[in-house]
Parts: sequence; structure tokens; C-alpha cells
Amino acid sequence: MNYCSECGKPVAKKIPSGDNLPRFVCDSCQAIHYHNPKIVAGCIPEWEGQILLCRRAIEPKAGLWTFPAGFMELGEGTEQAARRETFEEAQANVAITRLHSVLSLPHIGQVYMTFVGSLLSKEFGAGLESLDVQLFDRVEIPWDELAFPVVKDALRRYVDDVTRGEFRLHVADLPDRLV
Amino acid sequence: MNYCSECGKPVAKKIPSGDNLPRFVCDSCQAIHYHNPKIVAGCIPEWEGQILLCRRAIEPKAGLWTFPAGFMELGEGTEQAARRETFEEAQANVAITRLHSVLSLPHIGQVYMTFVGSLLSKEFGAGLESLDVQLFDRVEIPWDELAFPVVKDALRRYVDDVTRGEFRLHVADLPDRLV
Repeated sequence: MNYCSECGKPVAKKIPSGDNLPRFVCDSCQAIHYHNPKIVAGCIPEWEGQILLCRRAIEPKAGLWTFPAGFMELGEGTEQAARRETFEEAQANVAITRLHSVLSLPHIGQVYMTFVGSLLSKEFGAGLESLDVQLFDRVEIPWDELAFPVVKDALRRYVDDVTRGEFRLHVADLPDRLV
Repeated sequence: MNYCSECGKPVAKKIPSGDNLPRFVCDSCQAIHYHNPKIVAGCIPEWEGQILLCRRAIEPKAGLWTFPAGFMELGEGTEQAARRETFEEAQANVAITRLHSVLSLPHIGQVYMTFVGSLLSKEFGAGLESLDVQLFDRVEIPWDELAFPVVKDALRRYVDDVTRGEFRLHVADLPDRLV
């Protein structure tokens, strides 16, 4: 950030009075600009023991696999965001089953909130951001071709849970080196 | 947003190519500026059957009560944010017990992630943003003097869970009229 989005004048990084962290502050209109972590809402869509994954058509990591996930938008709820991303990327409709994991990536200011969902039918296809969408058995997941370490981490936790038949919410931070 | 935070020139709201929502786009440098929901990390701190609440010293809703909560910062994880807010507002140290609720407020672009925590000792006090900090029995919670409807909603769900002895994660959207 170089300029104030309110008035267009230069900003400087300083600690506002009553605060304890540096923020971008406008020297002209005194507006304080806060930047905060973003939520990535995702869904692991299930169908008869298989899960639906997408091969990314866009950078970063085009050509690699992920479950449907993307930035939550203003005006929606977390489950709604996960359902929307599933429809956009995999042209599939899901009913949300449960929240599976809340994985913070402090070094890049993201929080992955990944739900498990049930496909409402076996209809799916590649959305604009996907090259391919396929159902995978748990033993067929392309572990070496996953797009991001956080996707691998969430899927590993999911597969372990399903294998053991024990479901719990996973709340964790992922260290820099993983991502 | 009126001006591009990158180059200082005016922005216009338009749907970028490949997108389906209007964004602030710079006519000059073509930067696209995304705005997304913010996470409010909170904690319900427990001590021997009581919970710790803070009376707000700052607007909005100065003078009214809440559990410690505030905007998650870049560089931290969700539990870390909840612990930090508890220390800042109630001068208390907690160990996080579990995630209690994920409550989306779509009309104001916030997601309240509220944890339950255990006070590590009975030491607490009013931080800079609090007028008063007190332990409350469940039957003493000042329901008519709570700062925000989302705080009331989360506390109501908490008290119901504790009363029944059944703990589950609450994921919900709160409608406009409640907040």
C-alpha cells in the first residue's frame, strides 16, 4: 500500500495512537487502513465413499489437484462460500455435512476453513478455473500432485479420520516451511 | 474506496475479466482491489464454573459487556488471536479448550470465531479497551447489557451447551435484524 484509498494521498506505516501494531496511516486525511487475514472456504465433496477433486486451470499451481476452495466474499456466510466454490470449480451441488478443519497460514495471512459436503447427485464438471474434475477413492488421491501443502494437510487429516471412523474438528496453524 | 492504494489514481467498480463480481479496479495501473470478510477471534474464558466478561471502554457500545474478541491480525493463527485478545482486554492468560462457534455476519463482512478457554490462574483485570472485567455465574450473565447480538447469540449457545453438558461446534449465519 502506497496511497490512501480514501483520498489518494501518500500513506506512511506508523502505530496509531491507542494501537500497538503499525498500520498504513494517511498523512493527509488521517484514515487508518487495516489489513487482516482472509478466509479461504473449501469443501471436500463426498459421493459413495469417493471424494471430488479439481485439477487447477489457473495459476498458481495450474495442473495440480485440490478440493474446491477460494476466498470467501463479502455478503456470504462460511458454508455458503464453500458451496459456491464447489459449484464454481466443480459444477457440483453439495449439502454441507460438517466443518472439518480451520487451518491458519500466518505467514501468508490466510485461514483455510474446509467443510465436508455430500454431493446432491453425481453431476459435476470442470468449471472455468478447472481443467478436470474427478471422483477419487481414498487410496487413489494424487498426493504428489496436490496444489498446496495446506490442501495436502487437510486431505491427510480427512483420510485419517475416515479411515479410523472418528471425526473431529481440526484447528491448527501450518508452519511456513509446509506452505 | 476512491483511489488505488498502489498508484494513487482513481478506481472504478467493475467486473474484471474472468471474475463474476464487481471489484475496485484501477483505471491507470489495472490493479484489482479485493475486499473480503474479516475474522473476529473471541474467547469465553472459564474459571471454576464461571466465565469472564469485559465491559467495553470504547465505542461502539461502550459500557456494555462482551467476552474478549477482536479482529485477527496478519501473522497470527486463530487460537493465538483469541488468546491475544483475552490478554489485551482482560489481562488474563487462557489455554484454548475448543472452538465453540463460527458465526458469519454477512451484512457486515465479519466471521466471529469464538473459542472456549481455561483461565490459567484467577488473575485478570481491565485492559485499555475495558472499563471492568468480572467473573459471572451462568445465571448472572447480563443478557440485557451485552454489546452485540452476535455476543448474545454465542453466549446463549454456550450456556445451553454447558447446561445440557453437550458440546458441539456451532456454525451459523446471523441475519441482519439480529446484529
